Amino acid sequence: MVPEDHPYGVHNLPFGVFSDGSGPPRAGVAVGEEVLDLAPLLGDDPFRAETLNPFLARGRPFWDETRRRLQDLLTGTAQAEAVRPHLFPREAVRLHLPFEVADFADFYSSLEHATRAGRILRPGEEPLKPNWRHLPVGYHGRAGTVIVSGTPVRRPYGQLKPPDAAPELAPTRRLDLEAEIGYVVGTPSIPGARVTVDDFHDHVFGLVLLIDWSARDIQAWEAAPLGPFLAKSFATTISPWVVPLDALGDAWVPSPPRDPAPLPYLTGAADRGLDLRLEVEIGGTVVSRPPYRSMYWTPAQQLAHLTVNGARLRTGDLYGSGTVSGDADGTQGSLLELTVNGARPMRLDDGSELGFLRDGDAVVLRGHAPGPGGRTVGLGEARAVIEPATA
Amino acid sequence: MVPEDHPYGVHNLPFGVFSDGSGPPRAGVAVGEEVLDLAPLLGDDPFRAETLNPFLARGRPFWDETRRRLQDLLTGTAQAEAVRPHLFPREAVRLHLPFEVADFADFYSSLEHATRAGRILRPGEEPLKPNWRHLPVGYHGRAGTVIVSGTPVRRPYGQLKPPDAAPELAPTRRLDLEAEIGYVVGTPSIPGARVTVDDFHDHVFGLVLLIDWSARDIQAWEAAPLGPFLAKSFATTISPWVVPLDALGDAWVPSPPRDPAPLPYLTGAADRGLDLRLEVEIGGTVVSRPPYRSMYWTPAQQLAHLTVNGARLRTGDLYGSGTVSGDADGTQGSLLELTVNGARPMRLDDGSELGFLRDGDAVVLRGHAPGPGGRTVGLGEARAVIEPATA
Repeated sequence: MVPEDHPYGVHNLPFGVFSDGSGPPRAGVAVGEEVLDLAPLLGDDPFRAETLNPFLARGRPFWDETRRRLQDLLTGTAQAEAVRPHLFPREAVRLHLPFEVADFADFYSSLEHATRAGRILRPGEEPLKPNWRHLPVGYHGRAGTVIVSGTPVRRPYGQLKPPDAAPELAPTRRLDLEAEIGYVVGTPSIPGARVTVDDFHDHVFGLVLLIDWSARDIQAWEAAPLGPFLAKSFATTISPWVVPLDALGDAWVPSPPRDPAPLPYLTGAADRGLDLRLEVEIGGTVVSRPPYRSMYWTPAQQLAHLTVNGARLRTGDLYGSGTVSGDADGTQGSLLELTVNGARPMRLDDGSELGFLRDGDAVVLRGHAPGPGGRTVGLGEARAVIEPATA
Repeated sequence: MVPEDHPYGVHNLPFGVFSDGSGPPRAGVAVGEEVLDLAPLLGDDPFRAETLNPFLARGRPFWDETRRRLQDLLTGTAQAEAVRPHLFPREAVRLHLPFEVADFADFYSSLEHATRAGRILRPGEEPLKPNWRHLPVGYHGRAGTVIVSGTPVRRPYGQLKPPDAAPELAPTRRLDLEAEIGYVVGTPSIPGARVTVDDFHDHVFGLVLLIDWSARDIQAWEAAPLGPFLAKSFATTISPWVVPLDALGDAWVPSPPRDPAPLPYLTGAADRGLDLRLEVEIGGTVVSRPPYRSMYWTPAQQLAHLTVNGARLRTGDLYGSGTVSGDADGTQGSLLELTVNGARPMRLDDGSELGFLRDGDAVVLRGHAPGPGGRTVGLGEARAVIEPATA
């Protein structure tokens, strides 16, 4: 029914929310070039909702059962007639924000990114703060401005402080992106109870691609001493298809060596990396291919850290990996790094020079991972066009 | 029907969510020593919900109309018989979290607090960062761990870095509180559209008392360079009764002098202070009486700043004033200040010494404001007992 080697083949089955013009938004699964309407096929209430949250809240046993049912329906020849009426061409549907975001936290877990950013932003100082190798540094972002791929991003105004001049309110001149992975929590936790590294698969349903838009000049002025605030809160873009952890069984890799050894609460069998391969395209030119597999802190560690103080998880919680950056040139996940804070502009294929993002730039973050039997697991894409600021 | 001089008289009418053991949680208004069950009296759907969000979402015209109807019903003698069946003794009901928190942001807007905290935490440096007098510094917190008054607060574990020793995972030894006011957003805003200082009354329904629990040792270790994270995310306590701005008409005061003058987007007629009088009690001893009226940045400025980048507001957004501290001894809103980071413990009425919070300490934040004709507007209280850490 679906070509075996399609990145959205039956080995993937990512979940999203779609509408087809004749009916409200509802849950669907991407199957090849089509979207499968889940509620009429499976008859379960959670799929009638306008967000995936009711499905996510059902937890691991229901996720597993749903996946088994879908794989049976999509691979058995006898069921093809039952399935076909519920397939919509993907290009004909509209995709919505797949889940209502409860809390959004964002980490800072690439050693290469943190080191390079530290060197650029605090030259002459030790690039990593003393805590960096001991815990996954993170902060809370704004859940209400997480938007779905395809939504334009308007260049934000903010307070800027030019060197040797008074602060002013102006559109950011240093609009950047950070290429990240976002983890989607389904099963809530009990307030006060710690979620361990090895509880990761019980709570996290899957992942999305995430663009953490960042206004570097607003950030530079506002962030002392409480961290980034309005420099990040205007928009965060996620891909429309939540790829289940179950599709990524072949993508796990050992976590990288760490020195010093993490404290025991940051250890466990689920402390593993994922071989996710990203690609950042700006204005039609691929500017970077960040490798996720070498991230210093893994998603299971981030979840354990997030809850070590007893903070509860809610269905719809989203946490970002932090900028994914590799060691080599052409693998940096932000323009801050790629252009050394704008000082060394890149040449795009159309001949133009890029320091930070320009009005009209189309930004695309794509990703894929190795799947079973040499197949590819598509992570889809998160994209946005930069619109000019309006007062 | 209600004594005129009661802090919850008809000049106040704060909204909350209660249950009486025979029925689900629902909207109520505190009237003297009783709670008025709104749905059966007013017949409006929003009051049947388990949170105030549907009511808050209706916006200023509906809030005003509801207030007029309630004041008519509660002051007309003819209506007393209609009202009486819907009153429950306050002491007999259970109070719930009054609204579902969308995003929680927290500011840092007392000049006295920021100066004193800067001196204590960064001795020898300029206490205020260069941005402080130009914008209301803030950060995002965790919405999912905002809890209602009366819920115990468990001492959190976290990563600490003792001087001259390796980091360890341990219960915080420096558990603090910050006395704050929290503003409750009702009317959402359009994504990308700025909310001005003078839009304040259209979007904000009212305020609560807010205790921003803070683990100072966790914060000191984790917060570079992205700000406080787990040091604050384990719990934030709010009072159960949301006091409408309409009850505070007599409490407005001119905003304090500022130097330099704020940028135009932080100015407007609604840039005013509020004469809110707070009281912090620990273990039965009043340890501080922080005056809100002198806060450097006002709530209308904070709202304008929060949205200057186009970030939308959602119903249920909550933003904290930042620690309320005055200039004089005995008006500091945190133990960090009251005990100089634990170095000068306070003597409580029971003879014990208090540096930071101890297991078993009962903390109460109370507040009131001047009302019409010399009456008092009660802000109620936010309280919690500190429970010992559990692994």
